[in-house]
Amino acid sequence: MQEILTGRGDTIVAIATAQGVGAIAVIRVSGANAIDIVNKIFPSKDLHLQKSHTLHVGFLKENDEVIDEVVISLFKNPNSYTGEDVIEISCHASPFIQQKIIDSIISKGARLAFAGEFTQRAFLNGKMDLTQAEAVADIIAADSKAAQQTALKQLRGGFSNDLKQLREELINFAALIELELDFSEEDVEFADRKKFEKLITTLKSKILDLINSFRLGNVIKNGVSVAIIGKPNAGKSTLLNALLNEERAIVSSIAGTTRDTIEETLNINGVLFRLIDTAGIREHTSDAIEKIGVEKSLEKMRGANIVVYLFDVNEMSDEDIHLQKELFEKENIKYILVGNKIDELNEDDLNKKFIAQNILFISAKEKEKIDSLKQKLYASVIDNSINTENTIVTNARHHAALKKIEESLDDIEAGMRNQLTGDLLSIDIRRALHYLGEITGQVEVDRDILGTIFGKFCIGK
Amino acid sequence: MQEILTGRGDTIVAIATAQGVGAIAVIRVSGANAIDIVNKIFPSKDLHLQKSHTLHVGFLKENDEVIDEVVISLFKNPNSYTGEDVIEISCHASPFIQQKIIDSIISKGARLAFAGEFTQRAFLNGKMDLTQAEAVADIIAADSKAAQQTALKQLRGGFSNDLKQLREELINFAALIELELDFSEEDVEFADRKKFEKLITTLKSKILDLINSFRLGNVIKNGVSVAIIGKPNAGKSTLLNALLNEERAIVSSIAGTTRDTIEETLNINGVLFRLIDTAGIREHTSDAIEKIGVEKSLEKMRGANIVVYLFDVNEMSDEDIHLQKELFEKENIKYILVGNKIDELNEDDLNKKFIAQNILFISAKEKEKIDSLKQKLYASVIDNSINTENTIVTNARHHAALKKIEESLDDIEAGMRNQLTGDLLSIDIRRALHYLGEITGQVEVDRDILGTIFGKFCIGK
Repeated sequence: MQEILTGRGDTIVAIATAQGVGAIAVIRVSGANAIDIVNKIFPSKDLHLQKSHTLHVGFLKENDEVIDEVVISLFKNPNSYTGEDVIEISCHASPFIQQKIIDSIISKGARLAFAGEFTQRAFLNGKMDLTQAEAVADIIAADSKAAQQTALKQLRGGFSNDLKQLREELINFAALIELELDFSEEDVEFADRKKFEKLITTLKSKILDLINSFRLGNVIKNGVSVAIIGKPNAGKSTLLNALLNEERAIVSSIAGTTRDTIEETLNINGVLFRLIDTAGIREHTSDAIEKIGVEKSLEKMRGANIVVYLFDVNEMSDEDIHLQKELFEKENIKYILVGNKIDELNEDDLNKKFIAQNILFISAKEKEKIDSLKQKLYASVIDNSINTENTIVTNARHHAALKKIEESLDDIEAGMRNQLTGDLLSIDIRRALHYLGEITGQVEVDRDILGTIFGKFCIGK
Repeated sequence: MQEILTGRGDTIVAIATAQGVGAIAVIRVSGANAIDIVNKIFPSKDLHLQKSHTLHVGFLKENDEVIDEVVISLFKNPNSYTGEDVIEISCHASPFIQQKIIDSIISKGARLAFAGEFTQRAFLNGKMDLTQAEAVADIIAADSKAAQQTALKQLRGGFSNDLKQLREELINFAALIELELDFSEEDVEFADRKKFEKLITTLKSKILDLINSFRLGNVIKNGVSVAIIGKPNAGKSTLLNALLNEERAIVSSIAGTTRDTIEETLNINGVLFRLIDTAGIREHTSDAIEKIGVEKSLEKMRGANIVVYLFDVNEMSDEDIHLQKELFEKENIKYILVGNKIDELNEDDLNKKFIAQNILFISAKEKEKIDSLKQKLYASVIDNSINTENTIVTNARHHAALKKIEESLDDIEAGMRNQLTGDLLSIDIRRALHYLGEITGQVEVDRDILGTIFGKFCIGK
């Protein structure tokens, strides 16, 4: 099946770097004929005679016409990303030249790679397991330290090792139980049921930890969406600027490149917070809530992981805030109450006015307590009991498989309580093993699943 | 001066690949401390002990925290792009990771490179002359075969060699003439005036060839702007699609990447034609000319290198076309007359209707004679007498310097006619030599000029 799926044997080519204004671009070639093919357009040297992991400068030529002066990186199988012969060509970053090189490599016998096909080959050639392959896509998409660290840990095999260990223990028991089946007339029990029960309990607790880590994992990978809500003159725009200004300083050293995407996100202790609908705030249109009506505004708040409700301490009464709180709680919306403009009210009056409502008082204008708000946002999603050093599940596919494993373990437990025979228990154990193996790709994974995993990659990876 | 200009000695870093969605990105480090600096975050190996032109896979780490798994390309001085120690780091293409790597390299003692600073160092370290450095920017910007070939030829030193040869011949004579000055009392003439006259004539003819090639060079580098003009139902939109459709097929193998920019350009025999204001045509608004008024439409036509005047052969009379022609000629506008919808008129009627007007008859709908139109466009700008194998000047700076050289040669010729003495002739010869040297950077080039040249580069080159 894997042969058909990848068409291994053929040589693939793709641009590995982003399109756009840059100095150089990298074109990646992988496959049995990679060296033969590139040799045909790189006349300076016979790359077959060169050592792996070496660099070669020269001209790419087709029909005696120079295409570009390039640097060639040579990786010989099996010591390459895909495990095949891999050549990376650094060329000048003109789209025209990249196109020319791709065209001539294709004309010499390669074909365009599908999205993720290089990493898929790395998986199929045993260079990495499935969770590691998935981590590659996550690393590329990582936009915060937490996301990058979690993905890197997964790439380095942290998650796989946890699972492999659990799987091995289960396999040992499965083997013993299946052995009983061969001796079924004799009514022996090779597998110690007490010990097995204990193993299942331990397994289940570990699987549950992983399942629970997914909430955090999801937050780490996709960021936390935050809606800043409040009446027209509450100071939303000022707060937004106060929150974002410091962030900008951090990203300023890559000039202007990623500004557009970073602009409306906030990195707090390495976790990414996405400020939703900030365009509306920036435009200084009068209050969004009033304009779009209650139902729409509720929809917007429900769409956010957390709502920052900002109000002017001079304008709102304790009762107003109380009503607002009730609304949030009725609607099951996670919220933070933030009283703004404390610079315009003295502290005594403030303390008398708002009683025991768990409000964070700030001055957006004076940038007072902005840091406290950030810490509050962080604390609202990151449960301190979760140790970020542990393995964290960030992938929905893994999460789904873990849920299946949990089900199977439940069935095994029920079966044991009902004193099911070994052959019936064995079915549930095999099911648990299957899903454990599916996560890392140790069992043969459905073609559609592989397609889904690698289809999400960009071309060239 | 050069020391101050570049601050050589310090180590510079920049992202060399484009920003955006990609699999990998490349970060370039160059300078005396490049290896020391990268060693600090690449613990797997001491790069000092590795050979030049080798590749090294490992983790980048800062304070024991993994930043990314990367591939390092090592180029030791002087065998590198800049002539200094150069390290290129291939990392995963997450903007976050790129930022982290840049930050930690800066924290270890490098600084962000200015635009073009890598190539500027290559120039200052004698790895290339100025015209070659300029060719690097041209190659990156090349969007047609002709532009790429011309820039590549310049990168390989074609243009410089032509100039160096001319300059050497002139220097020989200058030396002889200046020698005369030392013996001025003796009234000798070491330099043979007849021979010198001949040399100046040859030089001037070569310089004029180069100056004249600039018109073509400019077209090759910047493309030819074409305006398609005509009444509302002349079929402009259909023609545009017929012209562009074939082009699309050619670019389709790089999926969707450069579509936006290529969409409205046309590559004919390797020369780029830019179809201006095609948005107006695409929007099917009624005729642009009628809407915007005569003065505006004339402005638009004057803005184009060439105007394609499209008309419906069924709607227009020979007299209409004649009047249109007169307008173009009065306004000194370069035009091609194209009669459309010949599929709706029989050939006899067509030939009777339009007499000797030099009209190209097509059917945009049936895609008939579209190729003839392309060839006509090509022929309208590429003078067959110009051999594209010759050196072609594409750079406005070179063109300006060549004009100065021409002036100096004129002055030398006039001086010789007026029997000027050697010391006066020598001034004009030195002026010609100065401008010849300025093109390649053989004479010390003004700091502002260098700033202008390299400021146009992107960061990372």
